Amino acid sequence: MPDKPGGGSPPDAANMPPGMLTEHLTDDWAFFVRSTREFERFRSPFQTVDVHDTVTFGKLFRLDGHFMTSERDEFFYHENLVHPAAVTHPQPTSALIIGGGDGGSAEELLKHASIQTVTLVEIDMAVVDIARKYLASVHRGAFDDPRLTLRIEDGFAFVRNATAHYDLIVLDLTDAGGPSAALYTPDFYRACAARLTPTGALTLHVASPIAHPERIRATIAQLRAAFPVVTPYLTSIPLYGGLWMMACCSHTLDPRQLTTLQVDRRIGQRGLKDLQYYNGDTHRAAMALPNFVRALVA
Amino acid sequence: MPDKPGGGSPPDAANMPPGMLTEHLTDDWAFFVRSTREFERFRSPFQTVDVHDTVTFGKLFRLDGHFMTSERDEFFYHENLVHPAAVTHPQPTSALIIGGGDGGSAEELLKHASIQTVTLVEIDMAVVDIARKYLASVHRGAFDDPRLTLRIEDGFAFVRNATAHYDLIVLDLTDAGGPSAALYTPDFYRACAARLTPTGALTLHVASPIAHPERIRATIAQLRAAFPVVTPYLTSIPLYGGLWMMACCSHTLDPRQLTTLQVDRRIGQRGLKDLQYYNGDTHRAAMALPNFVRALVA
Repeated sequence: MPDKPGGGSPPDAANMPPGMLTEHLTDDWAFFVRSTREFERFRSPFQTVDVHDTVTFGKLFRLDGHFMTSERDEFFYHENLVHPAAVTHPQPTSALIIGGGDGGSAEELLKHASIQTVTLVEIDMAVVDIARKYLASVHRGAFDDPRLTLRIEDGFAFVRNATAHYDLIVLDLTDAGGPSAALYTPDFYRACAARLTPTGALTLHVASPIAHPERIRATIAQLRAAFPVVTPYLTSIPLYGGLWMMACCSHTLDPRQLTTLQVDRRIGQRGLKDLQYYNGDTHRAAMALPNFVRALVA
Repeated sequence: MPDKPGGGSPPDAANMPPGMLTEHLTDDWAFFVRSTREFERFRSPFQTVDVHDTVTFGKLFRLDGHFMTSERDEFFYHENLVHPAAVTHPQPTSALIIGGGDGGSAEELLKHASIQTVTLVEIDMAVVDIARKYLASVHRGAFDDPRLTLRIEDGFAFVRNATAHYDLIVLDLTDAGGPSAALYTPDFYRACAARLTPTGALTLHVASPIAHPERIRATIAQLRAAFPVVTPYLTSIPLYGGLWMMACCSHTLDPRQLTTLQVDRRIGQRGLKDLQYYNGDTHRAAMALPNFVRALVA
């Protein structure tokens, strides 16, 4: 299915019935969620921010009109973005998050008993403010954890100027376009690779293998140019429209190194709590690629 | 997320911009696909039938306004409905399909070299006619295979009156409501169980574990009352809105009995061709249940 099918004008939000929040997978394929109340809508220095209440997803947060996260489905995204790499790492102590101002990835990282420092670099203070005000069930107090350092600054500049190395780097970004455009580039991936410890790993979300095959191909190729080991994997993210690719990128670490039993043992040893999705079975399952996805990332 | 969130009138097709085909997961959560052309729209003796062309999914077929199948995503559904059970069975020779008038499940069953007879019992001849006319890439000539017997009759009556036993039974049904309502009952499941060979298995699709948790709970409980071994599993079906539960039900057969390597070996031995999704890795991955799904089917 082509990325940009073209033909006809997109059925944008202006054409939708009132109260419908719309997210497009392509110009011709989209989904919508009914807002029962708009809590906030404003323009930050970087992007448009809005927060709604919804029956289906609880509180739902958008940037530039795109669904970012929600109270009820955030675990699909954050658990699968963080734990496959974090659990595979033998003993992660330091983590860096680029983006992720809602605090959901920080919360998952901080569940690991070995983690001593999490540096969260978010360009837009408004995102953190909104998360503190509305999304307590997403960050669950991560912003007040003494192991967390919050930096409000440009992620690319931070990584370029950094001298520290990290066991885990999580790119928790908006899709390319808007403030994050420079972070979907080979230059940025190489700068991140230089900041990983030898057994460290970077994870990111990529795109829908069904709606965005060309984005998958291009991004995986760029990642492979920057990292010796790139492991694409799949999860389902309701708020993004279904099946979604993520990737784990490293000098040496491959999440397929662990068996189901090893993952379950580490979940116990590290005291990982409140996992609504992730377990040893789903760790292995995420790495299983359907034939059409194997062909995409071959 | 509740099945019927209620509150407000549903944003039904009448409120949508023209050309948008809408499918609801709940009253407050839906997705749409743009139709570029309507090929057919009529009322059969049983249901409303329409067929569209779409950029995203190619030809798309609906019953009573619900998405049934499409040229480009049918493999997600049909391969995962058929092969986990069919490959686990040591040597399936006879199969029964209830519903499935588009021919997609028949085509997947007929890929197995050991299969000698497939009986397809579809209540509505119009569905078969539409499939023959528009969905050649879904059935791929299955209707002309000499091993296929097509019966246009009520599925419940057929099963109740049948005396044969089948290695595989596939319930390839519309959602409950409309002509298939009687087929979502303990009575029907027990009648099917009586028609399975000792190592035979029945498969069916159940619901979305995210949008329809109560349907999952109720259906799995009914299946467990009729079959000694019920194995829920998950796949992603773009046209149904993402993550979807299926189940394999049997007196003895459990798809988790096979390793990845065993599945891949059988795919080779049985000459299974043109698999766009299914492989040994995805067979195992389908049985991996996230924690919230484990809780739903506990």
